[in-house]
Amino acid sequence: MTGSTPAAHFTADDYRARMERATRAAADAGLSGLLVAPGPDLVWLTGYAPTAATERLTLLVLAPGQDPVLVVPTLEAPDAEKAVGAPALTLRDWTDGKDPYAATAALLADSGRFGISDNAWAMHLLALQRALPGTSYASLTEALPMLRAVKDAAELELLAAAGAAADAAFEEIRTVRFGGRRESEVAADLAGLLRRFGHSQVDFTIVASGPNGANPHHEVGDRVIEDGDMIVLDFGGLKDGYGSDTSRTVHVGEPTDEERRVHDLVREAQEAGFRAVRPGVACQEVDRAARAVIADGGYGEYFIHRTGHGIGVTTHEPPYMIEGEEQPLVPGMCFSVEPGAYLPGRFGVRIEDIVTVTEDGGRRLNDTTREMVTVE
Amino acid sequence: MTGSTPAAHFTADDYRARMERATRAAADAGLSGLLVAPGPDLVWLTGYAPTAATERLTLLVLAPGQDPVLVVPTLEAPDAEKAVGAPALTLRDWTDGKDPYAATAALLADSGRFGISDNAWAMHLLALQRALPGTSYASLTEALPMLRAVKDAAELELLAAAGAAADAAFEEIRTVRFGGRRESEVAADLAGLLRRFGHSQVDFTIVASGPNGANPHHEVGDRVIEDGDMIVLDFGGLKDGYGSDTSRTVHVGEPTDEERRVHDLVREAQEAGFRAVRPGVACQEVDRAARAVIADGGYGEYFIHRTGHGIGVTTHEPPYMIEGEEQPLVPGMCFSVEPGAYLPGRFGVRIEDIVTVTEDGGRRLNDTTREMVTVE
Repeated sequence: MTGSTPAAHFTADDYRARMERATRAAADAGLSGLLVAPGPDLVWLTGYAPTAATERLTLLVLAPGQDPVLVVPTLEAPDAEKAVGAPALTLRDWTDGKDPYAATAALLADSGRFGISDNAWAMHLLALQRALPGTSYASLTEALPMLRAVKDAAELELLAAAGAAADAAFEEIRTVRFGGRRESEVAADLAGLLRRFGHSQVDFTIVASGPNGANPHHEVGDRVIEDGDMIVLDFGGLKDGYGSDTSRTVHVGEPTDEERRVHDLVREAQEAGFRAVRPGVACQEVDRAARAVIADGGYGEYFIHRTGHGIGVTTHEPPYMIEGEEQPLVPGMCFSVEPGAYLPGRFGVRIEDIVTVTEDGGRRLNDTTREMVTVE
Repeated sequence: MTGSTPAAHFTADDYRARMERATRAAADAGLSGLLVAPGPDLVWLTGYAPTAATERLTLLVLAPGQDPVLVVPTLEAPDAEKAVGAPALTLRDWTDGKDPYAATAALLADSGRFGISDNAWAMHLLALQRALPGTSYASLTEALPMLRAVKDAAELELLAAAGAAADAAFEEIRTVRFGGRRESEVAADLAGLLRRFGHSQVDFTIVASGPNGANPHHEVGDRVIEDGDMIVLDFGGLKDGYGSDTSRTVHVGEPTDEERRVHDLVREAQEAGFRAVRPGVACQEVDRAARAVIADGGYGEYFIHRTGHGIGVTTHEPPYMIEGEEQPLVPGMCFSVEPGAYLPGRFGVRIEDIVTVTEDGGRRLNDTTREMVTVE
């Protein structure tokens, strides 16, 4: 829905500049062009978010030496025309029953190599491969992983505002009753708070209590929260088109010594990950710094995911803070630092802030307390 | 979210039978197997709906002579294990930092031809093409367009219930005030009604008033509805995992002669499309029957979309009622019959029912009046 796009904050000139930058980056990477599907790439480049991605082809074609063209179903052309970035591109619409791939192929070099949005539908890619057998393709994340990674000042402001809204939601949720209520009830509270503080889209409201906390991707269930539970809260969504994502682990009543020890360890790991952030450092160093603390504390085997992921017009994108990612950090990059420990059948802990790279270090976009909060 | 899956209505045996049927259909079509991505295909085959499709590979591999395998990120394995269809398949999980494509490739014949979900991400398809250069792929809709098209008795019951819920929403919305309110307010009422009548997911609530009605894909806007407006209402979503989709065109106050004439024409076209439905008839005949009425009435150029689309675990799927689609209708198929006429700058009319093919004709799953309803 267009309500979740950042349209109001950017102009056609902003989108024109982004399309030019992307086209140059494609040329620099030896690509003949970029094929951009509905989703975050298209929103970021044009401000256009069709209601849904469907079997009807919508595709932005960017190629050096030609103006941007958006191939779009005739039915959806009136909506596409209203996109803020529309003045910076040419619409080429096609009608039900016609072949949109032939129309697209006419825009492409027939032995070119193209970057294509990660989330473009396989059916569309297969049809293009068939229409132009001499072409080859690379996913945009593989070809230009950092295309959307470095945020400009306006984007940083929107990400900071989304983070502040998520923090405000945490300050409220920590005052509600947890004990005796279902995870799903607390999650509904969280979703309501995110919306109240300006989110147009809630992507996830994880409330993982007691043993459920040991599954890092447990979303929410009918479990009734009990006295003595550790509870992982991990929530976020989009506010004015930019993402929030923060985690805190709270406790109903007094924690045990081990619960406190694991929480302290994860908090120190999160701090170590944050302190590793500065320009020029490889992404994997952020992961290593956080992971070393948990491993040294004897819980290494329980930290079973990467330390972080980028955030922008989505809540989940490059760069990834993971072993093997040698991409150096650049000022303006924004990503989560979210180590955790998950003790099967018992409990889990995760602490997560969004961090942006500054000229000489990192700046957190979440800033609620990272000490363990006791809830009722 | 799992709340929108039909899990409660089907058993592991139902999913096992569907996977076996799909595997047989693949073999009959000369395919070496099927690669099923998160989304409607995966829900239909396994009952499993990951929270979101992401860059982390989740893929069901169905191949003749081997048991179904679901490749899944380790983090998501606990959720996948809870899927109703999980006992009918083997989970193969992979950890962040490992190569899931190598794991998947090991399950595939290296010179095989595979059907792959339309909406599988391009990045996953490209990685498989690279891991197994001798393989080739066809989109599932191209290879097995009718895989999910013929519904069984339990599915028909769920689709009928979703249709009845949408009808109940229409009976309520026709009693609310339209004049003087924004389209977006009426749309919010409609969304609330769909949820009240049991929908877990609202996919669209189109309220297209006056000239907005002439854009068949106008969703909803801030336009204030005026006396004398024609208003296209088109709404639907998922109830217990199965879709609803119905349109009615209402009028604020007394219509003009032309408005009445166009509405009558579209109503007759919808009736003609419905009457064309019976086993063995090609899909395109449904389109032709509806289109002929509107063309004969002199408004042919204003009917600018196909007559219908299938519905099931999505609100938009094969079979399509469109010129050129020679697929014969089969009892149990369910699809929309939704002709329209769109007079640029003035108004639009659309009337839509979901219809299922019976042994000797068609049965409507929507049954509110198709006469023009006057609203306040």
